[in-house]
Amino acid sequence: MSSAAPVAHDAACIFCKIIKGEIPSFKLIETKYTFAFLDIQPTSRGHTLVIPKYHGAKLHDIPDEYLMDILPVTKKLTKALGLDQLDSSKGYNVLQNNGKLAHQEVDHVHFHLIPKTSKDDGLIVGWPAQETDFAKLGEYHKELMAKLEN
Amino acid sequence: MSSAAPVAHDAACIFCKIIKGEIPSFKLIETKYTFAFLDIQPTSRGHTLVIPKYHGAKLHDIPDEYLMDILPVTKKLTKALGLDQLDSSKGYNVLQNNGKLAHQEVDHVHFHLIPKTSKDDGLIVGWPAQETDFAKLGEYHKELMAKLEN
Repeated sequence: MSSAAPVAHDAACIFCKIIKGEIPSFKLIETKYTFAFLDIQPTSRGHTLVIPKYHGAKLHDIPDEYLMDILPVTKKLTKALGLDQLDSSKGYNVLQNNGKLAHQEVDHVHFHLIPKTSKDDGLIVGWPAQETDFAKLGEYHKELMAKLEN
Repeated sequence: MSSAAPVAHDAACIFCKIIKGEIPSFKLIETKYTFAFLDIQPTSRGHTLVIPKYHGAKLHDIPDEYLMDILPVTKKLTKALGLDQLDSSKGYNVLQNNGKLAHQEVDHVHFHLIPKTSKDDGLIVGWPAQETDFAKLGEYHKELMAKLEN
C-alpha cells in the first residue's frame, strides 16, 4: 500500500476519538487502516466493531485502501473469538448499517462482527423477501448495466 | 495481486454454478475475485449479492485476496444503485451471514447489499443490546488479547 493514503477525521466523532486514544476502548487489532474493539453494548458476547481509520459516515465515503483492509481484519477476529470453531448450530453475522433508518447510530462507518449463539442474542434478522419477478428484475438489470458501463 | 491466488469451487454449489455461467444470473460486476448479481428474491428493489469467486461456506474460509476485493466492488454497486444519492431518511445495509442460525441459506459466502427505503422493506434489524458491564468486558478483552498475541 502507498503511504499517501488519504486521511480524514472529525474532532467531534466518538469513533475518531477512540482511534486517537482520546476515549479508551477495548482495542483488539489496529493496523495502518483499521481499528477493531469490543462493542460496550454488545448484543452477544464478543460483539466487536471494525472501523476504518478514516472518517466517513457511509460505506461509499471510504477510500478503497481502507475498505480492502476491513474484511481480512474481521477474519482475524473471527479466529480470536473462536467463531471458526463453533459447531454448526451456531454462527455469526457481519453487518454494516448506513443511515438511521438502516439502524446506523454513529456516523462513522463501522462493521459489526456479531457472534450468534442463541436465537435470542446477537443480531435478530427480519427478511421480507419478495416473490421472484423476472420481468421486473430484467428491466432493472438493464438500467443498472447502463450506469455501470458509463 | 498475484495470479497464484488459490481457487476452490464446488460442483454442487448454486453460487459456483452462477459464477461459471451454468445458471443464468442478473450479473452486475465481475472482477478477478468477485461476482455480483441481483438477488432474485429481493427484500427491497436493488437487493444485490456480492460473492467471492472462491467456494467457502464462512467468512473465515475465504483467502484474504478475495476478501479484499469484496468491499470496493460493493462500493461501486452502491453508486450504480444510487445509494450514495439517497436523502437522509433512507439508507442501506451490508450483511454477511454465517451459519443457519445466523440466517445463512446458501453455503457459499455472500454479502447482501440491501437498499433500505422504508421501514417495512429491506433488512429488518432486531438488536438485543445488553447493559454495559466493564468488568466482564475487561476480562474477556484480556482473554482475547492473549489469543491475538499468540
